[in-house]
Amino acid sequence: METAFKNYRELIDKRLHSFLEEETERSKYCRENSKYPYTLFDPLNYIMSGGGKRVRPILVLLSCEAFGGQINNAIDAAIAVEILHNFTLVHDDIMDNANTRRGKETIHRKWDVNAAILVGDELIGLSYRSLLRAKTENITGVLRAFTDGVIEVCEGQALDKEFEVSADVAIDDYKIMIRKKTAELLRTSSVMGAIIGNADENGIRSISSYSENIGLAFQIQDDLLDVIADEGEFGKKIGGDILERKKTFLYLKALEILDGKRRDDFMFLYNSPNSSEDKIKQIVKLYNEICVIGSAKDEIAAYTAKANKNLECINNNSAKKLLENFSDMLLNRSY
Amino acid sequence: METAFKNYRELIDKRLHSFLEEETERSKYCRENSKYPYTLFDPLNYIMSGGGKRVRPILVLLSCEAFGGQINNAIDAAIAVEILHNFTLVHDDIMDNANTRRGKETIHRKWDVNAAILVGDELIGLSYRSLLRAKTENITGVLRAFTDGVIEVCEGQALDKEFEVSADVAIDDYKIMIRKKTAELLRTSSVMGAIIGNADENGIRSISSYSENIGLAFQIQDDLLDVIADEGEFGKKIGGDILERKKTFLYLKALEILDGKRRDDFMFLYNSPNSSEDKIKQIVKLYNEICVIGSAKDEIAAYTAKANKNLECINNNSAKKLLENFSDMLLNRSY
Repeated sequence: METAFKNYRELIDKRLHSFLEEETERSKYCRENSKYPYTLFDPLNYIMSGGGKRVRPILVLLSCEAFGGQINNAIDAAIAVEILHNFTLVHDDIMDNANTRRGKETIHRKWDVNAAILVGDELIGLSYRSLLRAKTENITGVLRAFTDGVIEVCEGQALDKEFEVSADVAIDDYKIMIRKKTAELLRTSSVMGAIIGNADENGIRSISSYSENIGLAFQIQDDLLDVIADEGEFGKKIGGDILERKKTFLYLKALEILDGKRRDDFMFLYNSPNSSEDKIKQIVKLYNEICVIGSAKDEIAAYTAKANKNLECINNNSAKKLLENFSDMLLNRSY
Repeated sequence: METAFKNYRELIDKRLHSFLEEETERSKYCRENSKYPYTLFDPLNYIMSGGGKRVRPILVLLSCEAFGGQINNAIDAAIAVEILHNFTLVHDDIMDNANTRRGKETIHRKWDVNAAILVGDELIGLSYRSLLRAKTENITGVLRAFTDGVIEVCEGQALDKEFEVSADVAIDDYKIMIRKKTAELLRTSSVMGAIIGNADENGIRSISSYSENIGLAFQIQDDLLDVIADEGEFGKKIGGDILERKKTFLYLKALEILDGKRRDDFMFLYNSPNSSEDKIKQIVKLYNEICVIGSAKDEIAAYTAKANKNLECINNNSAKKLLENFSDMLLNRSY
């Protein structure tokens, strides 16, 4: 499935590379043969060359094609959203105190917090610069969608951090949070692609819902994979969210189902600083017993079904097929 | 002089207030009667209500009027640049480890670094949202100018931090840095105003140079006021830059003029961790002896003269008068 998007990925990487090379050179013109501002562009190029699946820019291109648009008109918007995504990673890593990202040291560890703040800020600026090169008659619409994305991801991150220290979080709150933090940039990507592809309002609405639903399914699956994934393939430690006491879908669902002493015991265990293998095992066992794992799978299936239904209005069959493949790539991850 | 801009300031504050109120309410819709995301909007409204001279938004409005444009078309761009300016303050304060701003605790002190990072990020998003409401046929031009501003201030801040730890900084480097860090947002402001006011290319070029020159004069004067201002009126401690061992215009000019043992002694004293009143006195005395104070005054006068010359192409005499008043407001600060 991955190979279906190899060409897209190559196109994206090539454009991204030439854009960043040009910007890095430009920044040095401030003084001939200057290394300045090296504290900005060294870490910036480090994070941008760290790989990634390029999920968001691929979605921009697919959404453009789905309505008969030319990839070439959307490529600058595609890399804009990838650059913006990397801004969120750099700043989130500071806030989450993360040591590694994609197997490499995070910027605030390898350099310092100041460098990481500034790299994130610069990435936002650069993302708009690239976006402004998108070829469309409705550049204002594209910019509005993108700006909504910027604002929503910031608010999603704020909610995520607030929920970490709040005792009063329900599944509905969780869904609002992941809609902003995870689903919104996918939605932004597809809306921008659709606008550039000259989709009508109906088309934009459909693909917007499609990508939002895929995004929600994706995040719930991320929570699920934390407890049932194959460690080797998934590349993360099983139970990482449990050890970090994250308010995942599974945790919040368990709280919804349990009551009385069992609920208290579960909350106590989950939120204890205990980080033993045994704690993870006990919690996963409970998740299975009370069918929380099953609930998560049902939710993922429901959002995926909704997403597929949203694709019905797309007449271009090969484009529709590619979007279905895209959902598969995103959701049929190793588990 | 200040009173000439009272009406502008009131208009700006009113629009800013209603925009932020609307956004704060919108953010709460994520959950009915929710206080979320309070970690974002509490500090955001705190910094935005902290006052400030509204220099940049006033310049947007004046530049629009100078070419016959309507203020009403430019007001959303005006508050956009004020919001963006506040983003730079919040993030710079983290990087500079500043405890207070406009007499109040900085966000990263009163809340924490995470809150301050996120508030800055959100402010960028909100600034673009407001900007996209500017009424102009060339919204792309306005957005390009604004995005150049975002990128240049980030790079200016990077250079500023790099120069702090570099032994190899010349006056030319300093000028590149202040052009990016201080002058650029003024330039951005005037260019946006001029575009919205339907200025021709020539007009845009002139007002762009005007504001850049004013910005350079303003920053050099800021350096100068640090050593010659009246403490009460200026509101800062005399010699603050000296105690922070900042590479100001005066310091770099002194290094250019001095040589041999005198130069070594000066560098040694300036960069010593000594923070006595005597150190400040000795350095200010030297600055006077070697005419560094005079050089700074000459530079300010030269940039101001250049700026005034840039205004010659503006035919609207009352608008020109207001821009001259604006330079006065910015430059004839208490000293």
